[in-house]
Amino acid sequence: MQLYSMPSSGNSLKARVLLALTGKPADIVDCEAGSDALVRAKAQGVLPFGKLPTLVLDDGQALAESNAILWYLGEDTPFIPDDATLRAQMLGWMFWEQYNHEPVIAVRQALVSYPHRAAEATPERLADLLERGHGVLQVMEDRLAKADWLAGDQVSLADISLYGYTCTAGSRGGFDMDRFPAIGRWLDRIAALPGVLDA
Amino acid sequence: MQLYSMPSSGNSLKARVLLALTGKPADIVDCEAGSDALVRAKAQGVLPFGKLPTLVLDDGQALAESNAILWYLGEDTPFIPDDATLRAQMLGWMFWEQYNHEPVIAVRQALVSYPHRAAEATPERLADLLERGHGVLQVMEDRLAKADWLAGDQVSLADISLYGYTCTAGSRGGFDMDRFPAIGRWLDRIAALPGVLDA
Repeated sequence: MQLYSMPSSGNSLKARVLLALTGKPADIVDCEAGSDALVRAKAQGVLPFGKLPTLVLDDGQALAESNAILWYLGEDTPFIPDDATLRAQMLGWMFWEQYNHEPVIAVRQALVSYPHRAAEATPERLADLLERGHGVLQVMEDRLAKADWLAGDQVSLADISLYGYTCTAGSRGGFDMDRFPAIGRWLDRIAALPGVLDA
Repeated sequence: MQLYSMPSSGNSLKARVLLALTGKPADIVDCEAGSDALVRAKAQGVLPFGKLPTLVLDDGQALAESNAILWYLGEDTPFIPDDATLRAQMLGWMFWEQYNHEPVIAVRQALVSYPHRAAEATPERLADLLERGHGVLQVMEDRLAKADWLAGDQVSLADISLYGYTCTAGSRGGFDMDRFPAIGRWLDRIAALPGVLDA
């Protein structure tokens, strides 16, 4: 398999982390925004959805959507729970990540970090995203104050998915992570898993 | 099981459609926005996430997130494909639905339909949502012009998920569905499945 990955993107980080944790073999092709590698990948037609990350399977089929890639890589591993209710709770967190978390937590990071988005980064928009982001993070804090992991009592795809953009919410996004000590301990638990910090 | 469902919501419709198609038994509790039934359900504590739809399982646990509920109800049915690549493609459409489709297609319907959101429905916002919505629908059209279903060659959870808000995109959302004939035929195929129109 080949994972076409944007080094600066939390969506791509999710897939790299799960590859590291499962040991499944894949070549990682870095395609940073604006890079020649990204132009080349698009010209080669390996990104049929035009999005990163894209996982190209051995039969040439391509998968998009970071959380769907997590599901594919997570099948037959302990990162998908055996219990049906826990599986649905895990997926619930992953859909919540795309609908509630990413559009706020990741977007503020992008507006602050990427020069080509600076024009959108008005003070009003940044303030709105900050306030809404703290509300989103509080939902995670409430869960993690009473449990080590988001779904069930083991690390699952839900944790890998939410780790993607939460791990840089303070440093890149400017969110006040001191308010969320349980998230801080959860981030430390994930970072301590083998290979995560090198992913 | 009990499905707490908002009759006017596409997210709730998805779950009702899948219950009809699978024949799995669940009591449906209507909780329209602003209804006494919704106030009562919240007071009873059966909506721990404060969201609809919520599926309350026989052991009392509650599941939120419409697409996670679809997954739970779809397990061990033909609505989840046996093939791992197709499963990931199906989930890819479902994550795309929450990130790209719902925030545009459903939001325009809500702004136009719900009196309490009329203040947000500025001409500029409605025009922007219309243009972006046609782009979103074109992605579905491109797939459905060459295949009967979104993932693989059978109806799956991806179709049920996207049906939720696409079936009223023209009538409630004001999107120009004449541009998307393949979507029209796909909507007819779903509506012809037993029980869907009564769901």
